[in-house]
Amino acid sequence: MNPAALPVGVFDSGVGGLTVLNALVGALPAESFVYLGDTARLPYGTKSPDTVIRYATRAAERLVERGIKALVVACNTASAAALPALRERFAGLPVIGVVEPGARSACEQSRTGRIAVLATESTVAGGAYQRAIHALRPDAQITALPCQLFVALAEEGWVSGEVAQAVARRYLQPLLSRPEAAPDTLVLGCTHFPVLAPVLAGVVGPAVQIVDASGAVALALRELLSQKKLGVGEAGGRPRLELLATDGVERFARVGATFLGRPIRPQDVVLVDL
Amino acid sequence: MNPAALPVGVFDSGVGGLTVLNALVGALPAESFVYLGDTARLPYGTKSPDTVIRYATRAAERLVERGIKALVVACNTASAAALPALRERFAGLPVIGVVEPGARSACEQSRTGRIAVLATESTVAGGAYQRAIHALRPDAQITALPCQLFVALAEEGWVSGEVAQAVARRYLQPLLSRPEAAPDTLVLGCTHFPVLAPVLAGVVGPAVQIVDASGAVALALRELLSQKKLGVGEAGGRPRLELLATDGVERFARVGATFLGRPIRPQDVVLVDL
Repeated sequence: MNPAALPVGVFDSGVGGLTVLNALVGALPAESFVYLGDTARLPYGTKSPDTVIRYATRAAERLVERGIKALVVACNTASAAALPALRERFAGLPVIGVVEPGARSACEQSRTGRIAVLATESTVAGGAYQRAIHALRPDAQITALPCQLFVALAEEGWVSGEVAQAVARRYLQPLLSRPEAAPDTLVLGCTHFPVLAPVLAGVVGPAVQIVDASGAVALALRELLSQKKLGVGEAGGRPRLELLATDGVERFARVGATFLGRPIRPQDVVLVDL
Repeated sequence: MNPAALPVGVFDSGVGGLTVLNALVGALPAESFVYLGDTARLPYGTKSPDTVIRYATRAAERLVERGIKALVVACNTASAAALPALRERFAGLPVIGVVEPGARSACEQSRTGRIAVLATESTVAGGAYQRAIHALRPDAQITALPCQLFVALAEEGWVSGEVAQAVARRYLQPLLSRPEAAPDTLVLGCTHFPVLAPVLAGVVGPAVQIVDASGAVALALRELLSQKKLGVGEAGGRPRLELLATDGVERFARVGATFLGRPIRPQDVVLVDL
């Protein structure tokens, strides 16, 4: 079989990575994708790196067995903990994480070098974005801000209106209170956050750029497929989109629709056991 | 050793059960308590009943080894799934859950029989409160309302102010919009929610009673200790309060302070491995 005709595998600990899938489908509409959400074992953020590596490897094995031409790790925790292990285990398979593309995009777009990373508590504490940004731009002044409530808001589907605005103001206003120290770039360092981007933009105003890591990942994947001559090109028929979850297909469909940006029917989500 | 001099064991999947501990300490100030939060394996709500029984049994064994005279299961999921198994495994040890006392208190306090249960998604879906209320009051009209954002608000410590009020209004106003169908009693069916009780009271007004299951659990424990002649009475010296967690003692101390209603120092939380 022509490897270019295979789908791209996308892996996440749950439904949040569907924002990345949404960006990938938008940027590469001819490609097929198979998404695996490890909903039975989320959250990854509170687990040890060894456990995250074990889980991510098992999930990736399942996708590789089905046949994929590249793997996108659409989970911040797994991107930070497991990329080297996955690249070693699946030599020859291109593997892309979410942290490095997001950090790169932020460094390119920031004029002042003052960058704020919005993420979950565990991503902020792990420091992966801070390290990735500093590696690319050693003079960057980084504020890493845990915004745990954004996760719950996004999962509840409350992505606009009074509550979302009040939460965004409460997290972000302290950042903006001293204009001379305020960031000019916000990185959304959690896959749940892109659905809140319009509300965040309303709070921070037009002078602050919002970098959505999922858009940067889509660009990185497009470049990679082109370099490796793995783009579907003429090989593809009608692009397929397969959704797999390790638990709770009903909830996956209901909550996931917010993140994927379109309705999901429970019967279109396949339950897999890892 | 005089069994009455032993502490009461309290078990939860995380920090939320500290609201129950707070109520227990308030109602029984002469008693000693040992609290175990299984923070390494939370959340329980998304796990299968068999897994919850296994985890709860292991946690209870650890408390029993240390010596306790009664066990309070301060976790809704474990109360719903594991009480019979725990009572069988630890025959002779009084075991109290949170669901039945909360349901009983709501049934006693409601005049109209229209009762709303506020809980997490998984507690609502599991139906334990609905069953317990119907068993006591078959004519009750129950509305079970998943209020997932309350968990995140409580963990963030945002228990008053604009955001908490906006979230409470959004969840509760649909319940109250038709006065003739509105509940006269709200049961807080999640250990995280009592810290939001003042905000909820402000939204629902004085005509609606708020039943905090943790207060009902404290009354049930006091009655039980008295019946079994296990009250500390003259046996007690200075009451002790021990806090154990299976992971993240720093976070346990920081987030737990909101729930316990007083500061917790990280060095006062003992890490245990189950």
